[in-house]
Amino acid sequence: MEINLQRLIERLEAVGGLGRSDRPERGIDRMAFSEDYYRAISLFGRLLKAEGLSPTQDRVGNLIARRPGLENDLPAIGLGSHMDTVTDGGLYDGALGCLVALECMAVLRERGITTRHPIEVIAFNAEEGGPMGGTFGSRAMMGKENALDQNARQNMPAFGITPEDVLSVRRDPAGFHSFLELHIEQGSVLEREGLDMGIVTGIVGITRCQIVLEGASNHAGTTPMGYRRDALVAAARLICQMQELATRYPEPFVFTIGNLEVFPGMATVIPGRVNLQLEMRDLVPEHIEDFISRTAEAAAALPGIKAEIKRQISKPPAVMDERMIALLEEVGTRAGVSLRRMASGAGHDAQVLAGSGVPTGMIFLPSKDGISHNPAEFTHPDFIKKGAQVMLEALLRLDAMDLR
Amino acid sequence: MEINLQRLIERLEAVGGLGRSDRPERGIDRMAFSEDYYRAISLFGRLLKAEGLSPTQDRVGNLIARRPGLENDLPAIGLGSHMDTVTDGGLYDGALGCLVALECMAVLRERGITTRHPIEVIAFNAEEGGPMGGTFGSRAMMGKENALDQNARQNMPAFGITPEDVLSVRRDPAGFHSFLELHIEQGSVLEREGLDMGIVTGIVGITRCQIVLEGASNHAGTTPMGYRRDALVAAARLICQMQELATRYPEPFVFTIGNLEVFPGMATVIPGRVNLQLEMRDLVPEHIEDFISRTAEAAAALPGIKAEIKRQISKPPAVMDERMIALLEEVGTRAGVSLRRMASGAGHDAQVLAGSGVPTGMIFLPSKDGISHNPAEFTHPDFIKKGAQVMLEALLRLDAMDLR
Repeated sequence: MEINLQRLIERLEAVGGLGRSDRPERGIDRMAFSEDYYRAISLFGRLLKAEGLSPTQDRVGNLIARRPGLENDLPAIGLGSHMDTVTDGGLYDGALGCLVALECMAVLRERGITTRHPIEVIAFNAEEGGPMGGTFGSRAMMGKENALDQNARQNMPAFGITPEDVLSVRRDPAGFHSFLELHIEQGSVLEREGLDMGIVTGIVGITRCQIVLEGASNHAGTTPMGYRRDALVAAARLICQMQELATRYPEPFVFTIGNLEVFPGMATVIPGRVNLQLEMRDLVPEHIEDFISRTAEAAAALPGIKAEIKRQISKPPAVMDERMIALLEEVGTRAGVSLRRMASGAGHDAQVLAGSGVPTGMIFLPSKDGISHNPAEFTHPDFIKKGAQVMLEALLRLDAMDLR
Repeated sequence: MEINLQRLIERLEAVGGLGRSDRPERGIDRMAFSEDYYRAISLFGRLLKAEGLSPTQDRVGNLIARRPGLENDLPAIGLGSHMDTVTDGGLYDGALGCLVALECMAVLRERGITTRHPIEVIAFNAEEGGPMGGTFGSRAMMGKENALDQNARQNMPAFGITPEDVLSVRRDPAGFHSFLELHIEQGSVLEREGLDMGIVTGIVGITRCQIVLEGASNHAGTTPMGYRRDALVAAARLICQMQELATRYPEPFVFTIGNLEVFPGMATVIPGRVNLQLEMRDLVPEHIEDFISRTAEAAAALPGIKAEIKRQISKPPAVMDERMIALLEEVGTRAGVSLRRMASGAGHDAQVLAGSGVPTGMIFLPSKDGISHNPAEFTHPDFIKKGAQVMLEALLRLDAMDLR
């Protein structure tokens, strides 16, 4: 029972390419709630209908198509990803997972298979970070409080939705037997390691802090080196120490100083203050906390410098269901796919479902040169074929499992 | 033969304070070519007249008062500093040196002394860096080419002067027997070391470069630590290495990274490029060159980083005349003044005269907390008294010397 790669790619080009700019150097603009977003899910809906499903659009723009099973009182197996893109995005981020789900439905129809569980193919809206924050569509569906927070409410009118709309799309997570998502890696680990596939073990938590280092600004000519309290030199020392500290934690721990601002920032003045934007990601919150406290110690020990670490956001990690991980690993290995377990460093809809208690599994396919959120985004059809095949087989295997 | 400290301070308050803002938290605004600048030199001129001199204002706003000597064919001994300030400046920067020169003239008049050489008291205009660059008044007088360069010409109309005006103020440096300037240190070395006075050995040269470090910007979540080419981490390592390299050169060598820009500068993106603003100052140009080439080597060795060092400006150092240094040192020591030789890390009019072949000497007085270019600028009257006394005695000793 093989998936049809050509059909899958053709449909991906047709649906996923909606919103493509006329200018070749630019990418796909199919932002959440945009006209092109709605055009894309409308076309996706027509293709689902052609496979015998009856898709409906909920009031926050998620598209859901339920395929009845033999036992419709059982919870549904969810399958899908998101259809919105960033500005100047690529063909694969989000859309590929939706189109692979469609292809699985097409094969089931061709083979006349009815599963025991009902299946729901879902194209989520607003996964990409926008004014309301990332994974908005899945957060709304899973009834997450933050889909109705002040920030979200402020931005709703611009997108033509209301808090009532958000409340209306809530689903009981217990209605899902499990959830499977296929997505591009958006990193270069698989490509570097020459692998076909990654089995996602979890989606890292993210903590952001601002570090403020205060020294003393002074005349760059009249202040000898030994009398300086240079906040930028202190920042450089701290970054080197953090780089060393980071080696204490295993993958997927990462930290990034994404920005650094120097005050007053003039050639002739010794920097008196430096602000650093720190972000840490890991599956283990304790590692992030340990890193912050060791960084704070190192900063406090910088001579002549007053250091402050202000916490900004903190998103907990989401761990995938070990049974789902093992299943995908087994199906993949049997199919002769080279794979590894890996954490996801970026957020995904699967994270929201996993965080809502739905047994969730996720597959990553290699991103050429690790590029995403970019018109140059590309995943080779060979990987897509293997990925879709593993999804299809895992779906059938899942149908025989009682996970709840 | 003692200077009159009270008279000196009163006149400093009257002349130097012109341009003082009504708002107490703000300082003195007596910028070059401003109305308050001209009011100040006009009052200074009246005080010089009261001491029997006949000041004239040249066409770029320098005020010059010549006191005839016994042998008026001899070159003149120059004495003075500048009368312009930065925005929100203090009472002492520049004005103090002019008022000390006036006080020396007052004592000579009281005592009925006529020197062998003519003396010229000069209040320079536009010493502070402005649109035409620092030390404009003295550069114009010494006939420096850059007082007429494209940048200067472009800015002249705004200040109501012409290239002809600049040409008209040129003086033959050979017309000066020597030049003496007293100025506040604008640093904290003297205060930290508990000294009354610094004898300036030279004014450091300044070289500025931009360092560009190119790595690869990438997703801060999906790129493991080991796969990163983080330009900011590279910059941090380079700054630490430069800090170490700087210890190879004796005082007054200093280097400063006054600004650092991160691209794209977002929390979720690994920095792909960093620009660093580098400034080095020293009396020995070879030290600066050596530091640049060792920094370039260290930058080239940064793994995964493409480094480029672009030279921006390069101003040569100006070395004070050893006979002038020795004279000031001797006069000071005899007067019981605690002093040290030191380089100036900031530019001064004395630098321009020294660079024009005029035997030049310069005295620094302690700046409280090292503060200058600030309303809080302060130099204790005890230091002013000692400084003015040394200037007066050095002037009389110089009169007996043939330096040319």
